[in-house]
Amino acid sequence: MSDDRKVKVAIVGASGYSGEELVRLLLGHPLVELSAVTSRQYAGQTLARVFPKFANHPRGRDLRFTEPNCELLGKAAQIVFLALPHGVAAEFAVPLLQAGCQVIDLSADFRLRSAAVYKDFYAHDHPAPELLAKAVYGMPELYRANIAGATLIASPGCYPTSIILPVAPLLKAGLVNPGGIIADSLSGVSGAGRKAELDYLFVECNESLRPYGVPKHRHISEIEQELSFAAGRPVIIQFTPHLVPVNRGILTTLYLAPARHFASEAELAELTAEIERAYQAAYGSQPFVRLLDGKALPDTKNVAGGNVIEIAWRLDPRSGRLVVMSAIDNLVKGASGQAVQSMNILSGFPETAGLL
Amino acid sequence: MSDDRKVKVAIVGASGYSGEELVRLLLGHPLVELSAVTSRQYAGQTLARVFPKFANHPRGRDLRFTEPNCELLGKAAQIVFLALPHGVAAEFAVPLLQAGCQVIDLSADFRLRSAAVYKDFYAHDHPAPELLAKAVYGMPELYRANIAGATLIASPGCYPTSIILPVAPLLKAGLVNPGGIIADSLSGVSGAGRKAELDYLFVECNESLRPYGVPKHRHISEIEQELSFAAGRPVIIQFTPHLVPVNRGILTTLYLAPARHFASEAELAELTAEIERAYQAAYGSQPFVRLLDGKALPDTKNVAGGNVIEIAWRLDPRSGRLVVMSAIDNLVKGASGQAVQSMNILSGFPETAGLL
Amino acid sequence: MSDDRKVKVAIVGASGYSGEELVRLLLGHPLVELSAVTSRQYAGQTLARVFPKFANHPRGRDLRFTEPNCELLGKAAQIVFLALPHGVAAEFAVPLLQAGCQVIDLSADFRLRSAAVYKDFYAHDHPAPELLAKAVYGMPELYRANIAGATLIASPGCYPTSIILPVAPLLKAGLVNPGGIIADSLSGVSGAGRKAELDYLFVECNESLRPYGVPKHRHISEIEQELSFAAGRPVIIQFTPHLVPVNRGILTTLYLAPARHFASEAELAELTAEIERAYQAAYGSQPFVRLLDGKALPDTKNVAGGNVIEIAWRLDPRSGRLVVMSAIDNLVKGASGQAVQSMNILSGFPETAGLL
Amino acid sequence: MSDDRKVKVAIVGASGYSGEELVRLLLGHPLVELSAVTSRQYAGQTLARVFPKFANHPRGRDLRFTEPNCELLGKAAQIVFLALPHGVAAEFAVPLLQAGCQVIDLSADFRLRSAAVYKDFYAHDHPAPELLAKAVYGMPELYRANIAGATLIASPGCYPTSIILPVAPLLKAGLVNPGGIIADSLSGVSGAGRKAELDYLFVECNESLRPYGVPKHRHISEIEQELSFAAGRPVIIQFTPHLVPVNRGILTTLYLAPARHFASEAELAELTAEIERAYQAAYGSQPFVRLLDGKALPDTKNVAGGNVIEIAWRLDPRSGRLVVMSAIDNLVKGASGQAVQSMNILSGFPETAGLL
Repeated sequence: MSDDRKVKVAIVGASGYSGEELVRLLLGHPLVELSAVTSRQYAGQTLARVFPKFANHPRGRDLRFTEPNCELLGKAAQIVFLALPHGVAAEFAVPLLQAGCQVIDLSADFRLRSAAVYKDFYAHDHPAPELLAKAVYGMPELYRANIAGATLIASPGCYPTSIILPVAPLLKAGLVNPGGIIADSLSGVSGAGRKAELDYLFVECNESLRPYGVPKHRHISEIEQELSFAAGRPVIIQFTPHLVPVNRGILTTLYLAPARHFASEAELAELTAEIERAYQAAYGSQPFVRLLDGKALPDTKNVAGGNVIEIAWRLDPRSGRLVVMSAIDNLVKGASGQAVQSMNILSGFPETAGLL
Repeated sequence: MSDDRKVKVAIVGASGYSGEELVRLLLGHPLVELSAVTSRQYAGQTLARVFPKFANHPRGRDLRFTEPNCELLGKAAQIVFLALPHGVAAEFAVPLLQAGCQVIDLSADFRLRSAAVYKDFYAHDHPAPELLAKAVYGMPELYRANIAGATLIASPGCYPTSIILPVAPLLKAGLVNPGGIIADSLSGVSGAGRKAELDYLFVECNESLRPYGVPKHRHISEIEQELSFAAGRPVIIQFTPHLVPVNRGILTTLYLAPARHFASEAELAELTAEIERAYQAAYGSQPFVRLLDGKALPDTKNVAGGNVIEIAWRLDPRSGRLVVMSAIDNLVKGASGQAVQSMNILSGFPETAGLL
Repeated sequence: MSDDRKVKVAIVGASGYSGEELVRLLLGHPLVELSAVTSRQYAGQTLARVFPKFANHPRGRDLRFTEPNCELLGKAAQIVFLALPHGVAAEFAVPLLQAGCQVIDLSADFRLRSAAVYKDFYAHDHPAPELLAKAVYGMPELYRANIAGATLIASPGCYPTSIILPVAPLLKAGLVNPGGIIADSLSGVSGAGRKAELDYLFVECNESLRPYGVPKHRHISEIEQELSFAAGRPVIIQFTPHLVPVNRGILTTLYLAPARHFASEAELAELTAEIERAYQAAYGSQPFVRLLDGKALPDTKNVAGGNVIEIAWRLDPRSGRLVVMSAIDNLVKGASGQAVQSMNILSGFPETAGLL
Repeated sequence: MSDDRKVKVAIVGASGYSGEELVRLLLGHPLVELSAVTSRQYAGQTLARVFPKFANHPRGRDLRFTEPNCELLGKAAQIVFLALPHGVAAEFAVPLLQAGCQVIDLSADFRLRSAAVYKDFYAHDHPAPELLAKAVYGMPELYRANIAGATLIASPGCYPTSIILPVAPLLKAGLVNPGGIIADSLSGVSGAGRKAELDYLFVECNESLRPYGVPKHRHISEIEQELSFAAGRPVIIQFTPHLVPVNRGILTTLYLAPARHFASEAELAELTAEIERAYQAAYGSQPFVRLLDGKALPDTKNVAGGNVIEIAWRLDPRSGRLVVMSAIDNLVKGASGQAVQSMNILSGFPETAGLL
């Protein structure tokens, strides 16, 4: 395909881990051309210089980081990805939308429908509340139709992806109670971003297992919003993130209360079948959801580098609970891959283009 | 102190990870002499040959592994540690007790009071049910007085230690409901033992996060037994272990339901004070329990190599739940260190001897 | 491209780490169809069952491992990759060649020109010495023309790739002495293969740095063969491999003696220019060699998953030596990627097809 | 032993990795009392607050970091350890010596005999050249007698320890040539210090192998100084450090040229015996040198946490070279442990006190 027919895309903030992963995916994408990458820190340098791994791609030696400039970006690209810190992304989204670009934001700025909830969790006023109604939550398995016509996509967070996808179909089908949901997550260190802080030094993370952000992590806000939509009523969850020594990956274990008892063998069999049907109906034909069968359980190493979520579940007759487990690559299905998946839908490309 | 006045101790099965750690602790213990170590695989070789790290200790070059022989062990040692697989330990305990030794068993063989529960979880008849009533569960913080006079100590498992110690005082004080307890645990790979299996190869574990043994792990049996004792009625728990790429350490996150609501600030403050009092009463003067204060949360790297358990907790007004977190070194407080702590009590030594 | 026009390829021994990596590369290759994979251990199971990571590729759910059978393989595929242990590969190569297949062998069986050297290093007679003259050493940067017309390709080892590519151009240009070459290499644990041995357990490798196979590692034989060809006279090297706790990657540091002195600034500048010219002439237009410039030094994380070798070098006026450093992914440029690169040449495909 | 009879010691700069390790060793030392620890960053906080791992030691809850003040330190301690960056240590050494303290400096400030060499490698004038003649290089295996009477000890660097100890006896015995020595070293990340820099983030180090500081690392200066003393004439070495993903450990591989040929079996046997004798004479009775025999090779996991250096060697008849390998814990024998060993000698304590 000639470059003329490719859609031009740009990345604002391409030097963090999510930005770097976006570069990787977009350089390898057959239907787009990466026309601009910005970074205040690296402006003027080639991609190849900053990320040697891209030096053997032709664009790696040509493309240079620039200072972020919305006017130029608006001319250089049809679709602009924002891989920026929370609060900063909104500053770019407004002018880029006015310039006619489609914006896919990887930050949390447009994920919440409510500016009040945003303020509660992020501790400052929302920078562009008028856009909240316009933004579409970029989780294709739940919002594919909305994404197709959107101009502003709020691409989901990594923890929320690992939690919402496994739980939403069960809530929608009324198979589990909306109350008392617990999500216990383990995250690789790239989730903390490329930040020079003592807590994320190799020596501080290697041979270390630790919870953090207990009990009110910011991601809870978007998780509860989406689970509430699925349940049709307000959902409050318990969420505990942990930092563990891997580069990539989120492993989430969910504790759910089935809506009815399953004390007998027959009840157990029936509930098992219903859960299976709910998942198959929701995800049986989705290209990036892998419903594990048999004895298989999720393992982050089986999704590393890919845009897939693995899901497995077990009913526990002893406790009366349903345990659901999921694994994703936090930088791919949890960030950049999911953003590209939304781009594919937005642009009328095959949903898996550049992602298999 | 001259060697004549030291108590002679032996280890049966000293070539696994727990056995190796016992060797380390006992070689460094000022009041005992390690007089025998057995290993079928390494019989005839010196400690220094099998574990080069002990080569600079005088005993490392003298002491040789022998074939396990209860008659000889009975003569060589007053106290015998069994670091053997489940089911095998009982074969040694019976003759060693008859020979007049005190036995500290690190396997699961004598941890359960009920042979029926044993069969339910371990899938075979208990090999020596007559000893179950005699054995003392070797968790000094709960059973110090019983340990002092025991001849057979069933040293607790690593997961149970990380769960029972944080939960028991809350159940005893009636501060949390015995129903609906969830324990989510992360374990380093040494917990799987020194076994040549594909699942535990470096390449299979590095950059991997995975649950296993869901939903009915064997350790549940001893956890429920001890929590039921604490609660005064049957407790059923939900437990999910995960394998994560560290050598050592267990990090457990517990989800508990406080026995009463704490919606108002005043109720929150009161419950907070009661939990604090319960923990201080139980552990304030225990040498190996570290109750974290302020913003501190447990981290396995702060307990690695030590016999300490770190405990922190947070009440979550949003969910109405209590989240308790603990960290231990699975090979020390979760196995060999706790066994030495029991030995110290048993022998009338200072409880911290050789463990600080 | 329709599947009818794709070249059919098969892998014998597809369940080891190199085999798994070949599956990944060939499933993603636009010009071939993976028509058969064999594994005694997993015969009958789908790719997706054995390697969940391939479950989202259409072939992953269709293709099943079969018992290795040369007659069937000869019909199923035009090109057969052998990812088997040393000594076993030859058993398959002979009948497959007779069946008219092109064979790309990733083992050491056909890498040496001399059956006597093979016996010296592998301690048994060569199983098919008549094929040694027929085999082409599958290092495209040195033997591209020969590979194009070959029927039997001996794909190089991982250590040799990291050593021969940096050194050969310097020897050919007469810039360094053939005597006294030292190669010091670090290897990730996947280099040891997927074998259930204690030495490669997570706990034994994590936090461990160790040399092994000193001083006569088997790979020395093919390194010396190829460096001797480059130098035009016999070369004896010193080689020390080390095992370090990463999954993938080889980092090699080479110590070479420049053929002439460079005591003065002018001599240093001249020699610098000549080395630069020699590398540019050899690799300036090679798609998979990355000659680092400026202050950059090789880092295995920059080549992980890719078919690239990074090379950097420094003249040391203090010692009079040339230090050359290289990094590859041992499973890609060091094994499966290089084999696919040879397949591309052999088949008249673009050399980078499926490898960028 | 009562605290009155213990020697009072202090640490200036106790919050880095070497400082933290010194705290660990001195808290566990039976003959000293840690009376002061300084840290500008943590002044006012207890040891237990900054390093939770020390919270279960009585001193951990009492002892608070203070601002560094030489006058107070001079009163508080007889022996002061300086765990400070290069260039800063000298500022403290001068007043502390004047105050009558014995100073053990872990920085490079007093390791070189020549202020000119210091300036060549550290790029600034030496801050206190008059002290260079007074300082003793704190490597007990080579300078035990001098250490006994010293007031200023320059404790060696980690790389130098791993290189000088294996090579010095061979040079002294005239068994290897002083020319052409190559040292190739791998270092754990704690060697870079507790610094918030991107290069040392977990994600940048994990799954990464990389050389650095090629070809003129600062540690070369003290290595060459000590090897020159051993050889009796100037020695120039080639040294390449590498960063590898472990917390602790240095593994060094040395390439040496024996002073005479060993082509025949008889010559090989004779040279083997002489090297063995030289090492036995130098280290056979040293408590912290472990000369490996049989097939054993050094492994950093066997020295982690201990003050030991492992040494093994192989003569290679093919290349005519001697390969010597060593392993140490960079924070113990490579820094804090060796400093405590010097303190033991200085103070007339048993050399192994607090270090076994």
